[in-house]
Formats: sequence, C-alpha cells, structure tokens
Amino acid sequence: MGQIPRFLSWRNMLVLSLAVNFSLILKILKGDKERGDSWPDRTAYSSIWPVISTTASGSSLLSSASCNYTKIEEDDDRIINLRLGDPTVYERYWQEMGEVTTLVIPGWQSLSYFSDHNNLCWFLEPELGKEIVRVHKVVGNAVTQDRFIVVGTGSTQLYQAALYALSPHDDSGPINVVSAAPYYCSYPLITDCLKSCLYRWGGDAKAYKEEGPYIELVTSPNNPDGLLREPVVNSSKGILIHDLAYYWPQYTPITSAADHDVMLFTASKSTGHAGMRIGWALVKDRETARKMTEYIELNTIGVSKDSQLRVAKVLKVVSDSCGNETAKSFFDHSYDAMYERWKLLKQAAKNTKRFTVPDFSAQHCSFFGKVFESQPAFAWFKCEEGIVDCEKFLREEKKILTKSGKHFGDDQSFVRISMLDRDSNFNIFLRRVSASSNSTL
Amino acid sequence: MGQIPRFLSWRNMLVLSLAVNFSLILKILKGDKERGDSWPDRTAYSSIWPVISTTASGSSLLSSASCNYTKIEEDDDRIINLRLGDPTVYERYWQEMGEVTTLVIPGWQSLSYFSDHNNLCWFLEPELGKEIVRVHKVVGNAVTQDRFIVVGTGSTQLYQAALYALSPHDDSGPINVVSAAPYYCSYPLITDCLKSCLYRWGGDAKAYKEEGPYIELVTSPNNPDGLLREPVVNSSKGILIHDLAYYWPQYTPITSAADHDVMLFTASKSTGHAGMRIGWALVKDRETARKMTEYIELNTIGVSKDSQLRVAKVLKVVSDSCGNETAKSFFDHSYDAMYERWKLLKQAAKNTKRFTVPDFSAQHCSFFGKVFESQPAFAWFKCEEGIVDCEKFLREEKKILTKSGKHFGDDQSFVRISMLDRDSNFNIFLRRVSASSNSTL
Repeated sequence: MGQIPRFLSWRNMLVLSLAVNFSLILKILKGDKERGDSWPDRTAYSSIWPVISTTASGSSLLSSASCNYTKIEEDDDRIINLRLGDPTVYERYWQEMGEVTTLVIPGWQSLSYFSDHNNLCWFLEPELGKEIVRVHKVVGNAVTQDRFIVVGTGSTQLYQAALYALSPHDDSGPINVVSAAPYYCSYPLITDCLKSCLYRWGGDAKAYKEEGPYIELVTSPNNPDGLLREPVVNSSKGILIHDLAYYWPQYTPITSAADHDVMLFTASKSTGHAGMRIGWALVKDRETARKMTEYIELNTIGVSKDSQLRVAKVLKVVSDSCGNETAKSFFDHSYDAMYERWKLLKQAAKNTKRFTVPDFSAQHCSFFGKVFESQPAFAWFKCEEGIVDCEKFLREEKKILTKSGKHFGDDQSFVRISMLDRDSNFNIFLRRVSASSNSTL
Repeated sequence: MGQIPRFLSWRNMLVLSLAVNFSLILKILKGDKERGDSWPDRTAYSSIWPVISTTASGSSLLSSASCNYTKIEEDDDRIINLRLGDPTVYERYWQEMGEVTTLVIPGWQSLSYFSDHNNLCWFLEPELGKEIVRVHKVVGNAVTQDRFIVVGTGSTQLYQAALYALSPHDDSGPINVVSAAPYYCSYPLITDCLKSCLYRWGGDAKAYKEEGPYIELVTSPNNPDGLLREPVVNSSKGILIHDLAYYWPQYTPITSAADHDVMLFTASKSTGHAGMRIGWALVKDRETARKMTEYIELNTIGVSKDSQLRVAKVLKVVSDSCGNETAKSFFDHSYDAMYERWKLLKQAAKNTKRFTVPDFSAQHCSFFGKVFESQPAFAWFKCEEGIVDCEKFLREEKKILTKSGKHFGDDQSFVRISMLDRDSNFNIFLRRVSASSNSTL
C-alpha cells in the first residue's frame, strides 16, 4: 500500500478515476443525444399509423423502432393470437427505462420461507407492502389505510384465497359464486375445477334468484367489456369480492379511491409484468385476511420473494415517475398507447361497419385531472353483417385467435380481443379487420 | 465532440479510464486480502463444537463467523422455532459462493405470461428445464429421459396438480389419498382444505383396507422420520405419487436413479432456496403432465419467471461444482454440515438418554462413492423418561418449538425437529436438550 504518496491512497485514486468516468459517460451521452443515434427517442412512442413495433422480448439491447408497413405485409400468413391479455405492450416502456428497474439478486437471498414474522401475511416482503400503499396513494385508486395486504401468486390465487376465506366451512353446502355476464371467462373454471363443497359457480348474477348467502364478483372495469360495474344482486346476504385489476388510469378515469371489503389487484395489468405472477389484495377484515393467508400457505407456502422484490422496485419507479414534472410518467405513456389503439380501432369500426366495440361515457379522472372515455385492456368486439360465430370467422377468415363470447356467458357474435399485445401484432390485427371481408389476406 | 485529438475520442478515453478503475479495484482488493479483512475463510465452515453461527439473513455483507459459546449463553431466553424445515443452514454456503449465483434481471423481463410456446408446460423457462435434467444426471437420483417436466410454485402446488390430474373427474366421488404414518403433516390439510369432490384424505396407508382406486403418496426419504419408503398398500388399483424432495446426497445415500410415474422435487430442500417457491415434477405420462399443467394454469396462471431463472442459475452452479475436482462441491459442503449435526445430536441422545432419534442403516451412495447412514433434514425425536407430550415438554421446559407427532398420524411422544436451521439456533437447541431435565435454562 505504500508506493503512492501517503496523502493519496489507492482508494482516493479510485474515487478520482470514477469521477473521470462519470464525466466521460455524460459527455458521450450528450454527444449521442446531439447526433440522435443512441437512446431511443421517447417521442417515438407516440403512436402513428401503423403503431410502431416494439423489439422482440428477450433482447437486452434497445433498438430504435423499425416496424413499417412493408414489414407488416410480410407477416400476412402469421396467426395472430389475441386470446389472452398478455401485456407485452408495456415492454417498450420498460426497455426505454433501462437500468432503473434492474434488480440484482445475490444467490444467498430467498432461502427462508419467511418475509416478515410480525406481519399477519408472513410471506409479504415489507418493501412490496410499502410500495403497494404508496402507488395507491399516488394514483388515488384505492383506500389502503387500515387495510391488510395479502400478496398472491397473481390475483388468480387471491381470488381462490378469497373464496376459501369467505365461504362457510360448516356443512351448509357450497355457497354460490356469481358475476354479471359477460364475466371473466376463467371465473367459472377456477371456481369449479376441484368440485369444492365450499363454493360452486352460480352463473350470471343478473339471473340469480336464490335465497341465502352468496358471493358476488364485481370486476370493475369489467373483463371482457371494460364497463364500470356495481353489484347487481343487492341482497343483504351477499358477500362481495371486487376484482380491480383494471382500475388504473391508463384504462379508465379514476373517479374515487375504491373502498370495498376485499379488493384484488395485479402487477400483470397495472405495470405489465405478468410473468412475475404477483397480485395483492387489500382486505378490511382481519379474519378474512388471516384465512386468505392460510389458503396461500396451504396452496403454495407463500409467494416468490424474487418476484415480490421485483414488483416492489417496479412500483417504486412507477410512483417516482408520477412525481417527475420534467418527463412523462408510466401512466402518461401507457395512457397514450391505449388512447392511440382505441382511436384506431374505433375509426376502423366506423369505416368498415363490419364490427362494433362498446361506447364508453366520458368521466373526470382525478389522477390526470382531465375528462376521458375508458380505453380498456380488452375490446369486446361484435361481428356485424349477420356473422353468428365471430370467433370462428376471425380465426378462419382473418387468422386472428380470439376468445368467443360464449366463454363469458354471452353471445357468440362477441369475442374478447386483447388490446395489450405488441405493436406489430396489434397493427396486423387492425389491418386485417379493416380489410374487405372477402379478402384472402 | 471535436475538442480532443481525432485519434482519441471520448469513448477511447472512457475505455482507458475504466481500465485504470479496474486495476485500482484489483489493487485495493489485493491489499484487503493481504490484511485478511475481506473474504471469509471457507475452512471456517468445517464444523467444530459449537457449530459456527451464520450471519443473519437479509444482510448483503459477508462477515466472518462470530458465534461462540458465550454468545449462545446470552440467548438463553430466546424461543427457538424448529417447527418448520426452513432451510437457512444453506445460507452460509451461498454467501461464500459470492457472485456466481447473482442474477441481474432487467425491468423489461417477465412481461409475458409465456416461457415456451412449444412446451406442453408453456410456463416452464427453458433454461430451468435444461438445468433440472442436468442436475439429475450429475447426481444420478432420477431418470429424466422421456419425462415431461412440470414446474410449480413449490412442490406443494405440484402435489395438488398431481391430485387434480390423477383423480377421476367423473361422478364416482372423491378418491382416497393415503400415505403411511408418520406422514408429512401438511398432506391431510392440503388434501381436504377445499372439501373437494375429486379427492379426500384417506389416512394411514398401513391401515387402508378399502376396495377400488386410491392414490398413495410415497415420500422417500420420508418427512418426518427420514426413512426410505416403498408403497405399502400394493393393490393394482393404486396410483402412486412419489415425493422425492429429500432424495439428495446430503440427506441420504443415492442408491439408484428413481424411476416412477410422478416424482416431485423442490429447490427448497435440494439447494435451500425455499423463498423462491420453485418445485418440479418429472412425469412419465403425457396426459398426466398436461392435466398438471392445466391445474397450475387455473390455480396461478404459471409460475414466477424470476424465481425459475434464479433456480436455473443455482442448479447450474451446483452441477458445475460437482465437476470441480479442486474444490468441495455443494453436496460435499451440505453433506458435511448434516453429518456434523447428526453426529452431535446422536452423541447428545447417547449421553443424556432422555431422547432417542431413529437408527438408519448404512448404504452405498453412487454419487459420493462411499457408504454412509441417512442424515435427514428432520429429526424424528422421541422423548423418553415417561414424557407423554414431547412437544409440550420441549416448548414449556426448553423453549423449543417443534411439531407434535400427532400431526403426522403418530404418537405425541414424538416431535419433528428441523435440522436445517441456522447454526446458532441448532447450537442452542442442542445445548438445551443436552442439559439436565430440571434445568431452568
């Protein structure tokens, strides 16, 4: 250690050298920006027709937008799968955000089952709990004060946890679980898959006439049709579960902070990180939260710590971005993307008259401070011109895979179409449904 | 850009400057090493009495072993919880391995639900699938050829997926699920928690006399008693699920590559990463694998991608370590840790005669190429001297929390005790059960 002057240690030299690096990096970035050849221009994200394609997932390098109409022509034979709400539309934003949401996890993390011995939900990572409260406060879409947070492997697991917690465990037989049609197509399948004697699928809430206790699922905005929902059975014996997966400002105006007994949210649809499989429930009643926790303990002994930490980091960046007055926030970006897609889809519907999509009334959004119409994650798409089976028509004539209305307790003339796929797929979908019906594509 | 000579761009200068950083970092690290205050000495892991304490989880800094007998004395009033098999014994190894298992995950990863469209188990990360096959080949504990891999949120979810897949879905009523006592205490709870009409807990397989189809769980080595198991009902109508969570060479000699219809494994007990919640099933029959996949799709729409990628990296390091002839492998380390603990526990049992633990016959292990006795993840601990309720005795007299034998379909004179906790807790446990019974601690 003694071969440099005593007043200048190797550590001092390292600090000096790092400072030189930093200034050089800034200089280079500035130079690149002046030439416009490095960091993708964020304004490019503002969509024009056709919507600009994202890069494929799996690449760690950002590349500038490269999709154009010629590229789309080459994809004519490709089957476009819009059956699921795979939220890959968000990939570009997170790619452009670069390193700020990168998580470094050492190999010795995530050994213990436990995240917080003092929390009723002992497998909730404290950092995630903190960021969930913060993002709801920033957005103003849900009350978190005096609520228990239960984390789940996606909101799907939390739905089952809520059924377990809210069903009577005596011998009174299965409680009916209902939701107004069109309802989320997985509800009946999940509810009945194990033929539980605790609960069973009871069908369309609008047709529900039975006496006694029941559970009503209120999905608002609704999957598949994007409409805002209230309970419809309205009996004093009803137990409510509110699925608020889509109650975020990129999809719908935030009109008030939701304040219900059991509210379900998910990273999949709020920030687009479906592959992390993280959802959370805000629960008023301690015993309900305890039983939901018990279900998740029995079902999977907790929830991936790694993904919880990642969602915590992503939510932090989302909340931080909302307080940044010099740049567009995550919700600004995602609102713009959804706005552009819905504008194009509505225009195509108007031009061709071969299909319709729902109309939404405009409302004031407390988050954005402006009035707008809902622009949901799914299009509830109705084939016109006498087409009875819309799913079959789109699959056979347009090579577009969608989910038939029959799975949602509705008519086959409807299909649910994901509005959250990558730009390239959305563009092809839009072009195909805009083309004349006798087109061979 | 033009204020430095043309032959030397800002980028060239950055490269030069980074090189200076690198050499400075190396110099500083070398200096630290010479002073002996940085990297913990790996030989410190070789256990002496008392077993050396690990650092607490949650810290990102490695510190040298600091536990000594005086430290333990200070912890006399502490309640020691050994009810669960929280595998924190492995923390030290992964801390000592440093950066090799560190995973860097960019924020734009894990957006899509899908991992591999071409795989029957579409949410299995291909890299994890590859490393699962490799580690089983390296260890020789299971046949993977012509097997389907289904990944789950821990093997707990896979157990339920197997029940869903193997139960008849007609109206023949619930199939009985049995396992020889003492059986894993969570099996009855998980099986019956939703009062499914597909399956129900049928109790101790040794007492099972009913006709018709049934499912038998074979846990080998067994949780809680560590014994090797075969099916006991042995009817042609039996459907078998093999839970091989503990069939790894740190716990038991590997005598052959297991070759059963449905085999369950988990990262929690193989590498110690319980908080990742990753398990996998090796399944012979395509339709069974398809239905298991279907269950996980309904239950949680797949499995955390982040944790799958982490387990893939950890398994890779484990397999690599087995081929490294100059250093101890992961299994060498973990075998030594378990050997030391069992040696001390058996010695304490012999000295005090106040409790007993099972005897295991020695067998040849094809992985280590030597003969040894099982050294399980749990001690099936029997209180002697007329103590009827061993769990109560240890809780009230020794401040040690354990799981009573009654939860495992056995006698209250038994308890299950985790052998996988951190060294400091194991040391306190050992000291307390070795102390005279009228000690007030």
